[in-house]
Amino acid sequence: MAPNADPDVAKGAPANRAEFLEVYQKLKSQLLEDTEAFTYTDDSRRWVARMLDYNVPGGKLNRGLSVVDSLKHLKNGVELSEEEKLLASVLGWCIEWLQAYFLVLDDIMDSSITRRGQPCWYRVPQVGFIAINDGILLRNHIFRMLRWYFRSKAYYLELNDLFNEVEFQTSAGQMLDLITTPAGEVDLSKYVISTYIKIVQCKTAYYSFYLPVACALLMMGKNLENYKPTQDILVLMGTYFQVQDDYLDCYGDPHFIGKIGTDIEDSKCSWLIVQALKRANCDQRQCLLDNYGKADPTCVSKVKTIYNELALQSVFSEYEKEVYDKLVAEIENQEDHALQTVLKAFLGKIYKRQK
Amino acid sequence: MAPNADPDVAKGAPANRAEFLEVYQKLKSQLLEDTEAFTYTDDSRRWVARMLDYNVPGGKLNRGLSVVDSLKHLKNGVELSEEEKLLASVLGWCIEWLQAYFLVLDDIMDSSITRRGQPCWYRVPQVGFIAINDGILLRNHIFRMLRWYFRSKAYYLELNDLFNEVEFQTSAGQMLDLITTPAGEVDLSKYVISTYIKIVQCKTAYYSFYLPVACALLMMGKNLENYKPTQDILVLMGTYFQVQDDYLDCYGDPHFIGKIGTDIEDSKCSWLIVQALKRANCDQRQCLLDNYGKADPTCVSKVKTIYNELALQSVFSEYEKEVYDKLVAEIENQEDHALQTVLKAFLGKIYKRQK
Ligand SMILES: [Mg+2]
Ligand SMILES: [Mg+2]
Ligand SMILES: [Mg+2]
Ligand SMILES: [Mg+2]
Ligand SMILES: [Mg+2]
Ligand SMILES: [Mg+2]
Repeated sequence: MAPNADPDVAKGAPANRAEFLEVYQKLKSQLLEDTEAFTYTDDSRRWVARMLDYNVPGGKLNRGLSVVDSLKHLKNGVELSEEEKLLASVLGWCIEWLQAYFLVLDDIMDSSITRRGQPCWYRVPQVGFIAINDGILLRNHIFRMLRWYFRSKAYYLELNDLFNEVEFQTSAGQMLDLITTPAGEVDLSKYVISTYIKIVQCKTAYYSFYLPVACALLMMGKNLENYKPTQDILVLMGTYFQVQDDYLDCYGDPHFIGKIGTDIEDSKCSWLIVQALKRANCDQRQCLLDNYGKADPTCVSKVKTIYNELALQSVFSEYEKEVYDKLVAEIENQEDHALQTVLKAFLGKIYKRQK
Repeated sequence: MAPNADPDVAKGAPANRAEFLEVYQKLKSQLLEDTEAFTYTDDSRRWVARMLDYNVPGGKLNRGLSVVDSLKHLKNGVELSEEEKLLASVLGWCIEWLQAYFLVLDDIMDSSITRRGQPCWYRVPQVGFIAINDGILLRNHIFRMLRWYFRSKAYYLELNDLFNEVEFQTSAGQMLDLITTPAGEVDLSKYVISTYIKIVQCKTAYYSFYLPVACALLMMGKNLENYKPTQDILVLMGTYFQVQDDYLDCYGDPHFIGKIGTDIEDSKCSWLIVQALKRANCDQRQCLLDNYGKADPTCVSKVKTIYNELALQSVFSEYEKEVYDKLVAEIENQEDHALQTVLKAFLGKIYKRQK
């Protein structure tokens, strides 16, 4: 086959999941055998091993794998060296560790029951509030791993700053979410689009969309200061991704998405309720106030009826079309063609997704 | 007065508490007005302002102030410039922020009721589990402050690594503590001196004793790799400090220490129970097993009787004498005379303390 005959394969052969998981095993062993700053006792080594296996590798791994994919694209299809593949995978796992840290703590704060088809970690017998410190340990592992693999790199400082900045944005977004939608006393007048967007950008988009690409850019020796427009594109994509998530919670096929949505019952500050409140007349608004956030199926169905009266499915389709056109235009504005490929690959993965 | 006539005043004028607190106000304002990575809404700015005032400045500030004091000693009494004073104070506050972060989360994990004479933050109405994310925010603030004040310094990387390492050691120590002394199911066979020392070193000594001096050393342009013996001395001092704390919990004057000890009731892995278990005969051991960790005053007093039978007060006095002699000898082994002064000042503050 001629070189580049199939550019999707040549330039963007998706990262190998099995290879990526091997790197997890390697990192786990290194962390457990680390004696530089702390030496585990047998009990505590077993504890951490179990905690890692329970919380880190069980997700879809999209965020982590996309560091490897992004680097491949940025290198214009030139084969990654073994070292590059390893380093990109380590950064990918750092993002997965970051995600695990956020989720372990978020599940406690939200009193959630299950995560990824198993009980939330804090609900496992003998764990309980120890899960809080486990979250902190997960976070601390990231900086161990960055130090081991990147301390001699010219971009080590930027990498540290990047992870610190994204962690800060995510926890600031969490705060905004927590004080806007406090458990048990929802105030729907706070559910406005500006707050919604700010929460989503901070608590999801930075670490899920911007961070993987920023990691790959740093590995390419780029200065992130010059990539603010790229950041804006990725943050907008992350926002669109969360809007889809909210939409699918109500209108998706539970078969595809693997769960039955409960955002209405849970009083979530969802894109749908924000749009509904903006468009509702007096009676509809009152009906939403009376029925949102109740477990009773009659209440849920009254909310859904108003969503339908307000044609939120078309409102979503229009939003989706607009945001897609905007993203494509802005991606094509990017000078760097390899970077365009990265961004289009991200967009391709989420556009009109059903799950 | 002749120069250095009174070396304690000339070289070691203690840091000014009021000046130090001014720096807190400055840092708080900067954090709340920070728009680089996240811009607060009015609600969230008010939340964080209140959270900071509630949790950060209300302690004894010993750790924070000792950065300024240590730097003064290390400079051999040469007056600190305004910039040095400010930077040392910022590092001092970073340690206080770190402490606040640990305490906010520790109180949740320990189901504690009060802290510093007020309800623990998570028990304040409307706070609850939001306190978990507040702890995370406190942690993240540290790296904002380090970045603002130290990014241009040659030792910025070392400073980041130092805070990361100490945070990791502290959370590893917390883990060891949590799995050794799980709420509700204490296993006294785990209360042995090697575990006790490891927990105390990790969860207290590094951040309380080593970190302030290490910060001052970095400001002096020193390479921390060359200060492992200094670290050992400070970690030993921190261990001694916690042993005192455990001793005073039972034998101190509640009048002086400001509270009535409850380590026996709380099943704490205290130095006293560790020593008692090591020395007890069969009957005494059984009595400890039957009565330790019970709220009933009769049980508490049975435990105290065994402590007295085993003469733990003299065991403590002997330990105190030995550790003091050892510390003095090792301090005098240090080549750097200014550093000796720093270490002696720390030791002087804690030796034979009654509170
Ligand atoms: Mg949640
Ligand atoms: Mg949440
Ligand atoms: Mg959802
Ligand atoms: Mg505690
Ligand atoms: Mg504790
Ligand atoms: Mg105590």
